[in-house]
Amino acid sequence: MDVWKNRRLLSFTEAAADFASGRSTPRELLENCIDRIGKDEPVVRAFVCMDLETARRSADESTQRYKRGHPLSPVDGCPIGIKDIISTQGLPTQMGSPAFKGWRSLGDAACVHALRTGGAVIVGKTVTTEFAIGLSRETTNPFDPERTPGGSSSGSGAAVGAGMVPIALGTQTQSSTIRPASYCGAYGFKPSHGRLRMEGVHLLSPTSDHLGIIGANLDDIWRIASRIALSVGSAGCEFMHRAGPLPEASKPKALLRLFTRGWDEMDPDSRSSFDALVADLQRRGISIVSKDEDPKVAALEAALERNIDSALDIVGFEMQWPFCDYLARYGEVIGPRIHAIIDRASRMTRARYVELLNMRHALARQMSQVLKAVGADAAILPASSGPAPVGLEYAGSRTYPSFATLIGFPSFALPLLSAQGLPFGVQLFGAVGRDGDLCATARWVDRAYGN
Amino acid sequence: MDVWKNRRLLSFTEAAADFASGRSTPRELLENCIDRIGKDEPVVRAFVCMDLETARRSADESTQRYKRGHPLSPVDGCPIGIKDIISTQGLPTQMGSPAFKGWRSLGDAACVHALRTGGAVIVGKTVTTEFAIGLSRETTNPFDPERTPGGSSSGSGAAVGAGMVPIALGTQTQSSTIRPASYCGAYGFKPSHGRLRMEGVHLLSPTSDHLGIIGANLDDIWRIASRIALSVGSAGCEFMHRAGPLPEASKPKALLRLFTRGWDEMDPDSRSSFDALVADLQRRGISIVSKDEDPKVAALEAALERNIDSALDIVGFEMQWPFCDYLARYGEVIGPRIHAIIDRASRMTRARYVELLNMRHALARQMSQVLKAVGADAAILPASSGPAPVGLEYAGSRTYPSFATLIGFPSFALPLLSAQGLPFGVQLFGAVGRDGDLCATARWVDRAYGN
Repeated sequence: MDVWKNRRLLSFTEAAADFASGRSTPRELLENCIDRIGKDEPVVRAFVCMDLETARRSADESTQRYKRGHPLSPVDGCPIGIKDIISTQGLPTQMGSPAFKGWRSLGDAACVHALRTGGAVIVGKTVTTEFAIGLSRETTNPFDPERTPGGSSSGSGAAVGAGMVPIALGTQTQSSTIRPASYCGAYGFKPSHGRLRMEGVHLLSPTSDHLGIIGANLDDIWRIASRIALSVGSAGCEFMHRAGPLPEASKPKALLRLFTRGWDEMDPDSRSSFDALVADLQRRGISIVSKDEDPKVAALEAALERNIDSALDIVGFEMQWPFCDYLARYGEVIGPRIHAIIDRASRMTRARYVELLNMRHALARQMSQVLKAVGADAAILPASSGPAPVGLEYAGSRTYPSFATLIGFPSFALPLLSAQGLPFGVQLFGAVGRDGDLCATARWVDRAYGN
Repeated sequence: MDVWKNRRLLSFTEAAADFASGRSTPRELLENCIDRIGKDEPVVRAFVCMDLETARRSADESTQRYKRGHPLSPVDGCPIGIKDIISTQGLPTQMGSPAFKGWRSLGDAACVHALRTGGAVIVGKTVTTEFAIGLSRETTNPFDPERTPGGSSSGSGAAVGAGMVPIALGTQTQSSTIRPASYCGAYGFKPSHGRLRMEGVHLLSPTSDHLGIIGANLDDIWRIASRIALSVGSAGCEFMHRAGPLPEASKPKALLRLFTRGWDEMDPDSRSSFDALVADLQRRGISIVSKDEDPKVAALEAALERNIDSALDIVGFEMQWPFCDYLARYGEVIGPRIHAIIDRASRMTRARYVELLNMRHALARQMSQVLKAVGADAAILPASSGPAPVGLEYAGSRTYPSFATLIGFPSFALPLLSAQGLPFGVQLFGAVGRDGDLCATARWVDRAYGN
């Protein structure tokens, strides 16, 4: 039997019902978190730092609010971890880099402000790879300490997967939320680009960076995303689509199955697990359209394949600020991958960059058109090319999570698959700007498998 | 005779020619700046802080580069002032607020990084009103210490107007670059929204904030803007249009004259000065189209009038992060205007905000259509409703500079007008994204008056 099925993710939504009825309190929930952290953290190493004293005080205040029947928001009393590239008042923000050792931000990032003022309880900062793109750090996979938790939101994935917290904030510039969620048996959400504000998050590439949320279930994730969207908005973009109550589950008519070269990276067990899920969805009356049935899908896959490696060139070009400066100031304190990315970017022309931006727009249009043409509610694909690989240095393949990121489409990872006794995720990604509709589809798929 | 005509703005472009020929050096130019600062700063109070030792060292390094015939970029050796909401390595960034007393950023803002790595010599931080939107500070107008230099880039306007530096960086969320440029007899430029990167600049409203440049002439301004655009790019937006060498002067066929309620704010002298300029342009064969000749222009003016006051609602709504947090943390240390803006924003619905964003898009479309329909190369209007008013608390009317800001169109202020013995600017604003074409038009107008 799969070890991961014995794991229990820590649901905030269930706990919140108990807070309302008086059966439990935010302080009790926090103490559950602290117990689990005490047990697992020595091996998992998900946190860079914690402030449990402040967390307990916040949880007690939240407890009082529930007792008076006036929680501040749907996230009041929710224990959260925050990726260590996200500015957080009262705790250092160290970017996974010795260059930022002990550095403290002026205040809270927009997303943290939204959650803190909504009553969320900040447990600590979670481990990130170096600046969310360089060297991997010390965190281990909660199902096997020999394996990576995935990056770059390594600590956020591991903390939720280990049941230490119901929710942790991450970011995704290529694969940094969906991949660790997949490897750690958690749910993950990367919204449409620009829908959740990024101010106060250390940037890599403004056109590629997304806030990400890793959580115990879709309800928890949607609460958190909605609170951020409704509290600090999105500054000029549309608000997150259907921000507010969890959208009702909605059965998809059709799903667009994407193979891509990610399929070539998968072992037979992982393929079987995904194939079985797809076959089951078909049995439930959902039409699955893939490159084998429709040449438009084949052309889309070819275009995705052709361009996906350019995602890193866009990121690298935009990273020149501030990383050229960091390299000049910190030299070899910055890891070799970042040096290599900046070195490559410095040889790229502006004309090429503009060409890549145009490529991205064209690809997004093509994706939208194909989804529409085949009548699919979403694309379905693995969230990663199987479960977490062995080793802590390599954070795993970026292929599957990268497609939705490159074109800014919303994406969910659901922990419904397994291979080698380890969990990995199924990914659904839907039309840009229709995050709520995608959530409704994801809920239906998730409930079909008993969640 | 007008006192301001005796002033001499300090041209970097002229100096750079002397650097190249060996007739002068960046160190000599810097010492000229320091002399002027020594004479005028006690009254003008343009700077919050300076680091002349580092500036002299930078200027000496630049001198060596010119001697070797290898300047780093077209801005090498250019002394600059930097508005105190823009992060600058080695100097504090204090936002014009006691809440940020002594605060130092991690590093350089994107724009500062671009200029520093291009060899520019950072003289100091220039005074800003509180967070570029609140209380006015101590700076006085270089032509009359009883008058405001304009806000919020008060120190940048005054420093350039007094000939202390050839260039100073500012920002514009409503009128904060064009207005001080106008009052201080300097040139000003606010690019199309999003074309010059804002990372590292304290934000008010991401959809309204623009980097601004105040300078001794158009050539200096274009060098600086181009260096920023070409060095750090614009992160996903188009690059600044025609970034690079100064566009050739280009005579406009027609100009769209905007009256608006700004005209009602003007005294008869200021009106005469502007009328005379417009009449002279007509004599030179340029067609001037206004609401009196064309009902489309009248409709445009009506739409601008109707909506311009909503600009502050957009700004206020977006300011809720981080200013709700600042108000909670710093209380009355934050001035009353910011309290009032946030108070008003907190009563605004998200639906209203989205409505205002749509209004802004519609207004931008209408402006583009009218410019096209009447065949105008640009709109022409005063850069401010006359010269600087008396008093330091009130930074002057925002009306004239606000229109181009609200819709994100590029705008130049040229110091070609005067009234009451004091300078003020003529403003040209052109199609969004066509900054280079607008610069070509502005150059022609500027040269027609002997510059």
